[in-house]
Amino acid sequence: MPIDQQHWFTEICDDAGSAFSLRIKAKLHEEQTPYQKIEIYETETFGMLMAIDGFVMLSTRDNFLYHEMLSHPVLFTHPAPRRVLIIGGGDCGTLREVLRHSDIEQVQQVDIDEQVTRLSEQYFPELCEANGDARAELHFADGIKWVREAEANSYDVIIVDSTDPVGPGEVLFTHEFYQHCRRVLGDDGLLVQQSESPMYHLDLLTRIHQIMRAAGFARTQTLTFPQPVYPSGWWSATLAGNTDLTAFRQRDVETRPFPTLYYNHRIHQTSLALPGFVEQHLQENL
Amino acid sequence: MPIDQQHWFTEICDDAGSAFSLRIKAKLHEEQTPYQKIEIYETETFGMLMAIDGFVMLSTRDNFLYHEMLSHPVLFTHPAPRRVLIIGGGDCGTLREVLRHSDIEQVQQVDIDEQVTRLSEQYFPELCEANGDARAELHFADGIKWVREAEANSYDVIIVDSTDPVGPGEVLFTHEFYQHCRRVLGDDGLLVQQSESPMYHLDLLTRIHQIMRAAGFARTQTLTFPQPVYPSGWWSATLAGNTDLTAFRQRDVETRPFPTLYYNHRIHQTSLALPGFVEQHLQENL
Repeated sequence: MPIDQQHWFTEICDDAGSAFSLRIKAKLHEEQTPYQKIEIYETETFGMLMAIDGFVMLSTRDNFLYHEMLSHPVLFTHPAPRRVLIIGGGDCGTLREVLRHSDIEQVQQVDIDEQVTRLSEQYFPELCEANGDARAELHFADGIKWVREAEANSYDVIIVDSTDPVGPGEVLFTHEFYQHCRRVLGDDGLLVQQSESPMYHLDLLTRIHQIMRAAGFARTQTLTFPQPVYPSGWWSATLAGNTDLTAFRQRDVETRPFPTLYYNHRIHQTSLALPGFVEQHLQENL
Repeated sequence: MPIDQQHWFTEICDDAGSAFSLRIKAKLHEEQTPYQKIEIYETETFGMLMAIDGFVMLSTRDNFLYHEMLSHPVLFTHPAPRRVLIIGGGDCGTLREVLRHSDIEQVQQVDIDEQVTRLSEQYFPELCEANGDARAELHFADGIKWVREAEANSYDVIIVDSTDPVGPGEVLFTHEFYQHCRRVLGDDGLLVQQSESPMYHLDLLTRIHQIMRAAGFARTQTLTFPQPVYPSGWWSATLAGNTDLTAFRQRDVETRPFPTLYYNHRIHQTSLALPGFVEQHLQENL
């Protein structure tokens, strides 16, 4: 039996009829918080692995893909982002990337589950290295309640770095949530939401566009990127706003004073090019 | 035990410490040919699956990604391709894509193992629908012997649609093989070779560039694309030639009279944009 539970962590993607496994050295931690079950494994080749409710959240080895693509494209699309809200994102990898932008004045991060951050500090310390930045505020609270109570025009960019749309993350894919995001962003703000696999979840991806538009965003734009530890190895994020979401501050990307492992100005452009089958499906349904 | 051998086909990528599994309904065929072991499965959600020596070769559901990206970019990069040689490619999916180009006059396909084609005719008939095209010649022979004996300047494009560089496919990643390809292509011909995962096989990918250049190609260029059933879900092909490999007949792509599911002119451009870590590794080693 090659894939046993003792030596491998396996995530089954039931609808897709596929599974992804990583060989593990040891399970280092498991706990049931009031919100979800968090597990930490040491893998053979991917560094640390965090799983929530059995789903892979991140690994040391390849989280740079997701975190760079969830933060830099939206921040370089906005003409002058100053105030950022991260909903979810408790592992702090997105927060670290956002804080690399020196023009950012304030980042509020709102994750419902404090234990995600505490365990990330312990097992993914490199992702938490910017947590002490004076511009960062970590709140452990309900994301939908937060945007409901936030003032209009109070953020330039909202990054929804959520779990899948099941369990506590589900409310972050709703009309009500996006409507509040629209209001707190005002006319010029930009939203980005992780939007699952273009291969496996095309219907959900399409629904995200529909709900974002119904909630008052004039334009929506998906970008895709590889992500080996997520189902299909191919992932997406979807931008919403009222301006041209394919235009970005290319010169600023080229001269950025911080390192990236995946993202650059060509990757930004290219991430926006939709595969034929995705483009066609969106055209037929939007 | 969630991932058992009865209900799942699993490919373990040993070096990477990861595994990918597809849920199966039944094993339909298994045989040991003089070259390799071929298995055919009916999966729950990916259609048919062909495995060779335990490695996934293709599935009905997602082979379009690989076949489109191995054929259309190189053919639209060459200014006027007429004579094409496919080495490997026994499932005939690449051949079908090549034959969609009406200017192609002759395609010779050379796969060492006739059984790959016979089983593909049976289980992937859609990929073999162009096999009867008058321009297509199917040869079952040794690819390296074929290029050794081929005349100089006898092809415009060579597509190496091989298995991994272990077993019978290994000779297709050597200096001698590329040297013969260089000779039979002449100065204006283009080569493309599937070149594994940019995430898992970056050293091999780099070696392919090195060997291609040592064999006489002045320029080499990798393109990447998603491929869920291959290790890491992210794959690459590498072009070799003596002209600018990032320029292509964009107008012809935009007006192509045949359907594609993934490929289009934006995808062509974007596939050439290398991730930061790949670009850096190549720059340091080439």
